[in-house]
Parts: sequence; structure tokens; C-alpha cells
Amino acid sequence: MSRSDALPIRQELRGKSPYGAPQLDVPVRLNTNENPYPLPAELVERIAERVRDAARGLNRYPDRDATELRAALARYLTGTGGHPVAPDGVWAANGSNEVLQQLLQAFGGPGRSAMGFEPSYSMHALIARGTGTEWISGPRTDDFAIDRDAALAAIAERRPDVVFVCSPNNPTGTAVEADTVVALYDAAQAAKPSMVVVDEAYVEFSHRPSLLPLLEGRPHLVISRTMSKAFGAAGLRLGYLAADPAVVDAVQLVRLPYHLSAVNQATALAALEYTDTLLKYVELLKGERDRLVAELLAAGHRVSTSDANFVQFGRFDDAHAVWQALLDRGVLVRDNGVPGWLRVTVGTPAENDAFLEAVRGLTKEI
Amino acid sequence: MSRSDALPIRQELRGKSPYGAPQLDVPVRLNTNENPYPLPAELVERIAERVRDAARGLNRYPDRDATELRAALARYLTGTGGHPVAPDGVWAANGSNEVLQQLLQAFGGPGRSAMGFEPSYSMHALIARGTGTEWISGPRTDDFAIDRDAALAAIAERRPDVVFVCSPNNPTGTAVEADTVVALYDAAQAAKPSMVVVDEAYVEFSHRPSLLPLLEGRPHLVISRTMSKAFGAAGLRLGYLAADPAVVDAVQLVRLPYHLSAVNQATALAALEYTDTLLKYVELLKGERDRLVAELLAAGHRVSTSDANFVQFGRFDDAHAVWQALLDRGVLVRDNGVPGWLRVTVGTPAENDAFLEAVRGLTKEI
Repeated sequence: MSRSDALPIRQELRGKSPYGAPQLDVPVRLNTNENPYPLPAELVERIAERVRDAARGLNRYPDRDATELRAALARYLTGTGGHPVAPDGVWAANGSNEVLQQLLQAFGGPGRSAMGFEPSYSMHALIARGTGTEWISGPRTDDFAIDRDAALAAIAERRPDVVFVCSPNNPTGTAVEADTVVALYDAAQAAKPSMVVVDEAYVEFSHRPSLLPLLEGRPHLVISRTMSKAFGAAGLRLGYLAADPAVVDAVQLVRLPYHLSAVNQATALAALEYTDTLLKYVELLKGERDRLVAELLAAGHRVSTSDANFVQFGRFDDAHAVWQALLDRGVLVRDNGVPGWLRVTVGTPAENDAFLEAVRGLTKEI
Repeated sequence: MSRSDALPIRQELRGKSPYGAPQLDVPVRLNTNENPYPLPAELVERIAERVRDAARGLNRYPDRDATELRAALARYLTGTGGHPVAPDGVWAANGSNEVLQQLLQAFGGPGRSAMGFEPSYSMHALIARGTGTEWISGPRTDDFAIDRDAALAAIAERRPDVVFVCSPNNPTGTAVEADTVVALYDAAQAAKPSMVVVDEAYVEFSHRPSLLPLLEGRPHLVISRTMSKAFGAAGLRLGYLAADPAVVDAVQLVRLPYHLSAVNQATALAALEYTDTLLKYVELLKGERDRLVAELLAAGHRVSTSDANFVQFGRFDDAHAVWQALLDRGVLVRDNGVPGWLRVTVGTPAENDAFLEAVRGLTKEI
């Protein structure tokens, strides 16, 4: 029993544990899909410079609408996403988790429901529950693709208010085809109408282009993004979305005023100045990802198709025992609770070598 | 009609506007209770230095539990609040708004209710609504004190799950006596038991000591604080609470993981190093606050007792017309919607002089 069970907390929280991967101090940490490359030294200096400027006015509230930051994010999306995005179609918050929470406060909540296709990013369900939104677990195929016919049937039957599509999907790595998203969107409109949120946290690592162009003519579609992965800035907690400007108006009705600090805004702006440099690390990581896939296959493992900076590998009779055995060898990967599978984040070449060596050692024993 | 009304947003959001004071570019801005003194130059440099260090590891997620920051906040509270506070009895988030939101997600929410004594900080009611918590408006006396007998009766009758007490109260400035809080707490326990949240955002400016010592033996009491006012860091968005460690466990069940960025944590830690310096500005502001009160009274106005860095003054037949007239003279104050009253933030001596001159000009006309 947790200490908090003695308090008048909500019934559904009793006996629960806080969400989060174990933070263990091991030599090779490949468990939370962090980018292994520290920011380049010039960018670190630029952050210090921009934050110094911001700190001079820190006694004032930050720009509530994050105008400069949203314009910079819109330029980034326009330049890389194959679709022009205007600043008033962009919104930013403390991590894509907060973006998704705001979306569910506006479009989900008590008496409403959200559907995702599991296994997927587990925060979708947790944020739904945290906002009082009923969670509906939709189907996937055995190879972790969205089962389109089953998904369309589930939407028609359950009529969710919000549909989550994670592409590339976490923890499986699988990207979703554009025509599948279109079919899900059309089904969601026919059923209710509903909002469709495509979580593209890992899209910069994908073989496929972003689904941003689908925003055209789809006012109920939202694309969410993050600077945690491709921008190597997990510590910054900067998530954002692109959508019809009316969606941005809607989340502004539920956002806490001044939710985004002046130092976060300044740091994000500095990182966006270094987009080209940071995207080169993404290319390195894509190459390493493909190497991990090839080596895992060569070692006799199965992998699910990866368009992300991580690889789901298996199958194991007892995935958790393998997780522990790798940890005993100084390599921390993630057991996301998908039976038979584990997830490894793509690290530096040396980290990936260490992981592969640990895996090969295992293979001989198990 | 707002653009977002065309979307499937929640019914209760239709036709609403985002919360927030107008951000107008005028010479004298005394409308959002900001600290008028910029951070000292040495602290600005220290922030740049600490953020530079944090930026070197920005590719990693931040400390999810903000361990170092909570220890520093605990030291600050212990040193100034008249009551020893341990780090595991402290929690921090992006502004006290997020702290209060987490408290309501854990202890309020659908099917539960929260009570505040209005007029008070309007975000209490808005965050309640945003978390699906029923809001109950409790009574105050004509001079903006909590009407103790009426409040105890209201708690006994309505049995709220969460009771908010803002001390010093925003926008009226009034501090609440400790024995009143004890009486409300006891009534709230007898009725349910309920959580009692004392919002001490402005307590460093008060003539009365903090209510932190009341935490002793009261596991359902929470004191919330912010670095926005006394620490002159509204742009940082750093709110925190002190309570029984079980309360901290409870909010960790609902907080978004990694909610507090590494740059926010680093900046807050730098500011806490300069506590003594920053509290000297607080003393300056208390002196200016008392001057504003005296001059407003001398000019024939009424003021409500102020323990904060703002003064509520009146009474006006048409407060909004006075607000506009002051704005026309380059002075922005706040119309909080309290009939007959306006609120002015204590600024620098020069800003306060400008405000007083504008007010004296008005008096001759109105």
C-alpha cells in the first residue's frame, strides 16, 4: 500500500504507481529513446546566450502565446514536412504529453472517449484516464500494423471522440501509411465527427514522409511532434502540434496561462537555429538503426519494422528475463510489456556495439 | 462565434475566451502582480552558467523527480517559513497553476467538488472546471475577509473534496488568520475528509508569517507557493507545494512524466542561490506597498488591507471606466471584475509615482 492511499485520492488512483521507466545508473542506457548525441558546443553556447537575454526580463511573465517560437516551429515544419504551416496553426507546450493533455481537455474529458491501437505509446491511455476520458483499446495485427478493417469497424461501433494514431508507432517502430490514416479519419468523421491525432514524435527517423500534407482539407486532424528526439532535447520538454488554426484556438481555452517558461522558449528557439546540424545526427542514427536491425536479424532474432530511433526485437519466451540479463551486462533496454518483445533505443555506434555484444552473449545461453 | 466552436469541443467550452489579462504595450504596466525589479546581473550570469551546464546533457530526459530543486526549495521554506520542511514534502511544477491542476486531478475531478471564497484567484475556479471538478463559490464579508461562520456552514453543507484558501488573497490583498484556516480545516475533515489548499503565492510580502507551521499534524493540508513574485521570476513558471510526503506521492500519480524541463530546474536552482538578495527587493516592495496604501487613502480612496505586492482600491461607480481612464494616461492596472474595485501592482517608486499622479488626475474629474 502506498502512503497516498491513506489520503482522499480518487478511487482509480489507489494502489497505482507513478508512470516512468526505471532510471538506473548503468553504462549503456538504451531505454527511453533519447538521442545519444549531446548538443554541439556552439548550440550549448547559443542556448546560454539566449537564456541570458531571457533571464534579464524574467521578472515579467513569458509571452503567453509563444509567438516567436510558434513561428520558428512553423518554418521548420514548412521546410521539412512537405506542407506549408502557418504560425497560427502551431501550438507548443511542455512536452507532447502536455499537448496531448490539452487536446483531451478540449475534445475528450468526462463523458467522452478516446481510442488508440495498442501496443502504442502508453501515455495516450494514461493521459486519457488523467483527463477523465474513457479509453478504448483498438486492434493491431500480429505484426503490429494497424488492422485497417478491424480499426474501421471499431471506430464505427464505439464512436470515439478522439482517435490516436502513433506513426512511427512506439514501441513497435512501425509507420502508418497515409491512406490508412485517411481511412481512419473518414470513418471517425462518419461516426461522430471526431478528432484524429497523429503522434509523429519519431517521424524525422522514418523512411516515409511526414503526414503533415494530410492536414489540407481535414479540420479535425492534428499532427503532434516533439523536440525530444530529432532535436536531441529530451531535457527541454518541448512538444508541439500542427493543425487547423481553430484547433489552436480550442487548446488555448484549456491551457494554463503562461504554461511555457521564458527559458524553455529561449532554449527551443536556439535549438531551432541549429536544425540543419541536428538533422545530421538524425541521419547518423538512421544508419545505426538499420545496422542494429541487420545485426539482430543476423543473430537470429526477429525485429518489427522500424521507422524510429529504436528497434523492437524478440521473440523471447520470457522477455523480462532477457531484459534483466542485458541489464546484468550493463545494457538497459525497455520492457514495454509487449509479450515476447523488448525495445532498444539506437545509441552511439559504441553503445550499439555493446548492446549487440550483450545480445549475442545471451543468444548462446538462452 | 469563435473558430473553435465549429469543432467538436466540449460543450462547456463553446463561446468561451482564453483566460489572461490583456498584454498591452503601455509605459507603466501594473496589472499582473509582477515584480518590477529585474534579476540582478550576477544572478543573470549564474542562470546562464547553470543552463549551459544543463544544456550539455539536454539530449537526456530531466530528473523526473527534480530532486536537487526540491531539496533547495525545502531549505528555503525551512529557513523562512518557521517550520522544518523535508525534500520529500515538497513538489514543484510549471507554475503554481500546474501544481493546483495536479492536486485537483488527484483529489478533485469528475464527481467531486472544490470550494473557494470569492473574489479570489480566478484560476482556482478555472482549473477546477478544467479538471471536471464542480466549483462551489463560498462567501466573504463586505470587507473581503473570509466570513468564518458562513464558511464553516458552507463546508458542512456542501462537503467539498478540496477547499481553497488564498492568503494573502488575490485580488483583495487580505491575509487569512491561522485560526481561521484551522477552523476551516477541522470543518473540512468533519465533513468528508477533504484536502485544504492554502495558496501562499504572495506570502513573502505579508505582515503575517507563513501558515507552514500548520502542516504539523495536518496530513490533508497543502501550502502552495511560487517563485513568480518574491523571487522576481514570473517568466520561469516555477510553482511548488509543501505538504505531508503522502500528498507528494499522490500528485506523482497524475503528473505528466518529466514535466519540469532541465533548463527550468537549472534556472530555479540559480535563483534560489540568490534568495537573500531577492528578498531585499521584497522589503523594498513592502515599503512601496505601504506608501501606495497611504497615498491612496490620502487621495480619498478606499483600499482593502494589503499583505501582498498589490493593492485593491476603490470604490468606483464604474470601475471599468476608471481602468480605461488610467490606461489612457499610460498606466495599466487590473479590473478583476470585483464591482467597484481595481487592483494595482506595486511597481518601482517611479512607476508608483506615475500611477498615483494618474489617480490624482482622475479624482478631480470623476
